[in-house]
Amino acid sequence: MKFATLANNTPDGRLHLVSRDLSRCAPAEAAPTLQALIENWDALAPALQTQYEALNAGGGEPFDPASALAPLPRAWQWLDGSAYESHGTLMAKVFGIDNHADKERPLMYQGLSDHFLAPCADVPLPTEDDGIDFEGEFGVICDAVPMGTDAATARGHIRLLVQINDWSLRAVAPIEMRTGFGWVQAKPACSMAPVAVTPDELGDAWRDARIDLPLVVDWNGERFGAAGGYDMGFGFDQLVAHAARTRKLVAGTVIGSGTVSNENYREIGSSCIAERRGIEMLDEGAARTGFMRFGDRVRMECRMADGTPLFGAIDQKVVKG
Amino acid sequence: MKFATLANNTPDGRLHLVSRDLSRCAPAEAAPTLQALIENWDALAPALQTQYEALNAGGGEPFDPASALAPLPRAWQWLDGSAYESHGTLMAKVFGIDNHADKERPLMYQGLSDHFLAPCADVPLPTEDDGIDFEGEFGVICDAVPMGTDAATARGHIRLLVQINDWSLRAVAPIEMRTGFGWVQAKPACSMAPVAVTPDELGDAWRDARIDLPLVVDWNGERFGAAGGYDMGFGFDQLVAHAARTRKLVAGTVIGSGTVSNENYREIGSSCIAERRGIEMLDEGAARTGFMRFGDRVRMECRMADGTPLFGAIDQKVVKG
Repeated sequence: MKFATLANNTPDGRLHLVSRDLSRCAPAEAAPTLQALIENWDALAPALQTQYEALNAGGGEPFDPASALAPLPRAWQWLDGSAYESHGTLMAKVFGIDNHADKERPLMYQGLSDHFLAPCADVPLPTEDDGIDFEGEFGVICDAVPMGTDAATARGHIRLLVQINDWSLRAVAPIEMRTGFGWVQAKPACSMAPVAVTPDELGDAWRDARIDLPLVVDWNGERFGAAGGYDMGFGFDQLVAHAARTRKLVAGTVIGSGTVSNENYREIGSSCIAERRGIEMLDEGAARTGFMRFGDRVRMECRMADGTPLFGAIDQKVVKG
Repeated sequence: MKFATLANNTPDGRLHLVSRDLSRCAPAEAAPTLQALIENWDALAPALQTQYEALNAGGGEPFDPASALAPLPRAWQWLDGSAYESHGTLMAKVFGIDNHADKERPLMYQGLSDHFLAPCADVPLPTEDDGIDFEGEFGVICDAVPMGTDAATARGHIRLLVQINDWSLRAVAPIEMRTGFGWVQAKPACSMAPVAVTPDELGDAWRDARIDLPLVVDWNGERFGAAGGYDMGFGFDQLVAHAARTRKLVAGTVIGSGTVSNENYREIGSSCIAERRGIEMLDEGAARTGFMRFGDRVRMECRMADGTPLFGAIDQKVVKG
């Protein structure tokens, strides 16, 4: 199934089913909001599956991804991992810090979840001096996960897959990292691509609780990266289990992969500017790529190997807030 | 005004006004929940003030703080500072780490906010090996704060004061701190004392956006500390402004002070076990106080100088989760 949320003057919007080709949509009959659905998934999903199959056969109204909200416009919890080893290794090398990547223990922080920006909304930020950067990621939305759930069981709690831009302010991030407290100012609201999908929509590309598809990133209309999603050091099942070790996870918890990155980043590019700057430091002795300026756009999209659209595109402009 | 939330089989409970002496309560007529109130404070507060004055004159039903939920049973955002310098200085000295206290920049992390434990609910945690500790704190609840709000303006957005136990797992905390990502496993759900109060209830004890009253902490019935709330290096107004520099704050954001601590901790005691252990390390060469065991209780209460109850007491038992 594929879901989007359209504006209806409420904070959670109105849940819609979207046809597989993202051309048409219809209000979800069984659930008013994505939060309501995720809180009662098992009871509500069968009727929605029936409605989804009918929608794919025809009917509904035209779907305009650019007018959609984030599929989950606000969440009770957003926990973001950093599961791509090549990203962590590169950043550690560049900044001369310890590489905190640990084969046994995922990296994860808790971020702002009271609003996720709509996929084509402007992104208001206070100043270019903060080092405005994007981070292309994948994420999952879970139903309620009991404390102490193991990874094998956690996989069954992953109900939806999403695509995220984890906006980051690079001038602030290292200052906050040094305190050990994690990021507050360095991590403003994230954006979410318009469509959340059930894992079965990916077929074999949902593999080992990882999304085995490239995330294509364009900055101001130029290709910036197309890293594949599979190379996570920990699968989403392990990230969910890590998050749930000392807390139960509320239904609707969103868990992110961290910046999508592959070891051959010199060939396929990156999903954030910081990584490209790091490569420049290693290869050329200094970073020459600047961070984003007001008016800049970033576009991120992931499609199936046959071109079938999946999450729709994030396509946003950064503006002075 | 004083507010409590009583269980009614919904996640947000039913908002009640509580008499100044915490003996009686009545359903808040103007707002069903604290979240609804904080989203529309200016419009709803006058009628509630009238109802509160009538309740103080008589009527209502008996108020049992032990049966209350957290006044805000779940929040869209919880940002916890660490504003007591004596706590930070001591912890840095004990652990041989840099003291991250900065005169210009508060310490702050984003924590779990999808549920706050009720003040007398059992606290389920997975294992004693994690180093179970309490952290007695004060906090504020804000209405909506625009991005970029300065401290002077932020003060007007502080609508309610609360008392919090920020449960902490000390065996995990340093591992997570070293990554720079902040705490996930080390910070399970917090608890909140039963009553949230408007700042005017404190009279002169609400001073410089600080709570100038002691927080009395008892561990298994023995006095553990009674540190005063005033000694914050940053007032709550500055903490709110710090949080809002690169994000707007959703109405109902809870912002914490960090562990209440005073420089004369050898005389007045501490609000967390880690601090006592630190003092033992300095004075005796080794920590001799262990962390909490399953079955242990901690009680935290803050009263006015004349004995008038304020937030009611947190009084909880730690259990195997």
